Amino acid sequence: MKAVYAEIITVGDEILYGQIVDTNSAWMGTELTKIGIRVKQITSVSDEASHIVQALDDARSRAEIILITGGLGPTKDDITKNVLADYFHTELKLDEQSLADVTELFKSRGYALTELNRQQAFLPASCTPVRNVLGTAPGMWFEDKGKVFVSMPGVPFEMKRMMEDTVLPQFKAYFKTPHIIHKVIQTVGIPESMLAEKLEDWETSLSPHIRLAYLPHLGGVRLRLTGTGDNAELLETELETEVSKLSALVPKHIFAYGEVPLEEALGSLLKERGLTIAAAESCTGGYLAHRITSVPGSSAYFMGSVVAYDNSVKMQLLGVKSETLQQHGAVSEATVLEMAQNVRQKLNTDIGVATSGIAGPDGGTAEKPVGTIWIAYADQHGAKAKLLQYNKNRQLNIEYTALAVLNLVRQSLNIAVEE
Amino acid sequence: MKAVYAEIITVGDEILYGQIVDTNSAWMGTELTKIGIRVKQITSVSDEASHIVQALDDARSRAEIILITGGLGPTKDDITKNVLADYFHTELKLDEQSLADVTELFKSRGYALTELNRQQAFLPASCTPVRNVLGTAPGMWFEDKGKVFVSMPGVPFEMKRMMEDTVLPQFKAYFKTPHIIHKVIQTVGIPESMLAEKLEDWETSLSPHIRLAYLPHLGGVRLRLTGTGDNAELLETELETEVSKLSALVPKHIFAYGEVPLEEALGSLLKERGLTIAAAESCTGGYLAHRITSVPGSSAYFMGSVVAYDNSVKMQLLGVKSETLQQHGAVSEATVLEMAQNVRQKLNTDIGVATSGIAGPDGGTAEKPVGTIWIAYADQHGAKAKLLQYNKNRQLNIEYTALAVLNLVRQSLNIAVEE
Repeated sequence: MKAVYAEIITVGDEILYGQIVDTNSAWMGTELTKIGIRVKQITSVSDEASHIVQALDDARSRAEIILITGGLGPTKDDITKNVLADYFHTELKLDEQSLADVTELFKSRGYALTELNRQQAFLPASCTPVRNVLGTAPGMWFEDKGKVFVSMPGVPFEMKRMMEDTVLPQFKAYFKTPHIIHKVIQTVGIPESMLAEKLEDWETSLSPHIRLAYLPHLGGVRLRLTGTGDNAELLETELETEVSKLSALVPKHIFAYGEVPLEEALGSLLKERGLTIAAAESCTGGYLAHRITSVPGSSAYFMGSVVAYDNSVKMQLLGVKSETLQQHGAVSEATVLEMAQNVRQKLNTDIGVATSGIAGPDGGTAEKPVGTIWIAYADQHGAKAKLLQYNKNRQLNIEYTALAVLNLVRQSLNIAVEE
Repeated sequence: MKAVYAEIITVGDEILYGQIVDTNSAWMGTELTKIGIRVKQITSVSDEASHIVQALDDARSRAEIILITGGLGPTKDDITKNVLADYFHTELKLDEQSLADVTELFKSRGYALTELNRQQAFLPASCTPVRNVLGTAPGMWFEDKGKVFVSMPGVPFEMKRMMEDTVLPQFKAYFKTPHIIHKVIQTVGIPESMLAEKLEDWETSLSPHIRLAYLPHLGGVRLRLTGTGDNAELLETELETEVSKLSALVPKHIFAYGEVPLEEALGSLLKERGLTIAAAESCTGGYLAHRITSVPGSSAYFMGSVVAYDNSVKMQLLGVKSETLQQHGAVSEATVLEMAQNVRQKLNTDIGVATSGIAGPDGGTAEKPVGTIWIAYADQHGAKAKLLQYNKNRQLNIEYTALAVLNLVRQSLNIAVEE
């Protein structure tokens, strides 16, 4: 089957001058790739008609699909709509549905429609409008000499919603792209190179229509298995089989199937088992609690966290013994164990976790350099601590430590089940 | 003075397929803008020789400077260097300095140099190498028919270091760009449109060589005043005068001059006054403490936070009265005031702050819909609470609430001084 190519054109000086990072294109690239459309080029151009026209001409010479974002606002800087009307030799006319949508939007916000925003409902006569339920600028779908052009606002959540609701489904139908199925397997606590070693033989044995991608990120390595074929059902079965084989090779490191963050996977596990958790944080400074509470519904299993930044708080609220702090220091196995055990008792939860370390960039000693971090886990069976050794980057140290704690809880729960 | 134009070309399928977001170009756009070079287009192309050559030809037709990132790695996917050697009709030859650098880099990591990495020290004969002290791929500076081409690795920290150390200073010298001075003024707690209204007359009165940019972001509106001129000293004086005039127009909303986040500006204020702070968090779930502790050295003024997610924790650790919770609910002025006052007392700090609200996306009622959030501030003079009303986005609600608390503390401290 012949590949379908797309190009993305972003319009607006604010991207060129670095005032905003273009995250839209990466999102679009990911979604297009998923349905078998390959992005050939991404082009960011200025708010100038001649420059936009040149980019349109260049893009159509290489691709079947041209996606344009930006330049659809109500002010005079925003010229994309007029440029497209000229480019396709058509005129602007009022689109009743778009007017109704924008009127409704303003009403829901308690404002009357302004004339500038009313103008946004005038669209090139030759386009099919793409509804925008989250903003004032409708999208536009043009077909011209076998090429499809789609113009959308640059506001990320508006563009995403329009892509998901309208544009991507229409591309699938219009270009009869092959069935493409993705399976995401999320791992944590194993570096990419070790993972690759464990999966090597299996990966080599994959059929050519199934490919594996390693997508490492701060929180671990996401594996994406992509299958392409004409029979969706057969393909699904094949992929499921391969996912099972993969899972058997690295059972301890997989925390989720699909796009689920670790804190959400852990939350589901806790809810499923009817367990509650509390934290006592020093070096993570509230970030661990933030990660846990970023999951909607986390109040079902998360009771609270004591961010005991100062030693006085460790003693007063958590009951850490002053002898422990004096003898071993705040960053020590003894302290972090007391913190985890005591917060579990005080907050009356099934599980208590704790962090204490030197996040940096300063504050290290020869014995305990910056990046020396202790974490602990406590439950009814007892408590255990783990020493982490990172480097001088405060932000990364906080991030990695929270991740290590979440993973420690996950592992402890899974081991408990296996026993 | 004639404007100098640059274009940026990024090479690599990983950007097109959305596996990574191109943050390099925005950074480069910002830095180039600062020295008076305008970015005309950003183009992301695939790892194909003909595609890279086409992008080079297109870019040189529009700009004097062509910056290329990516495709310099040691594997066979990485073809930028060979494409450039062909494009400029030159051959690869060993660059001794680059070989010494890469050998040293491997030695410092405890590895012997591999043949693949040794190959990276072979560079096109006609280029001037750009040193890369943080990675294995040197950069390349070419001059051809009045145009400058610079190729650098796509690894952000390597590219940035090379730009700062070598490329940007050379551009300044080579293109004799004018003096450009930027002043950043950071505001919070005032929407862009109201700010614009207050500044309108003053902005209109600005000399044409001084421009104002509004850069709104999640945490407020950054104002950037940019002056261009031939006399740096005079320009600096002019800008300082304008900054003073601006400051007088919105004195209560400016929290920092320069690129300082609100939590850091607040930290400096607390340190300066010798004050300590503690937090009691419900809906922010540790995020407020995280923001405060993301500042290095925050342990000097931040004692801790009680993340009292469950009501039992509000009562037990914070001493919130059960009658208060029963009568008014957890999300109420009475509860949040007790939380702020009690955490201040228990943790023995000068200031106590608190948050309690319905972060969403579920859990609202008719009376207290999702996004209903109370925050409070307490010090030796007493306590005050403030009601916030946001919408259903959990992440934004948490973010905005933390910001509102930081700003409430900042305002309270400034008012205390004015009195």
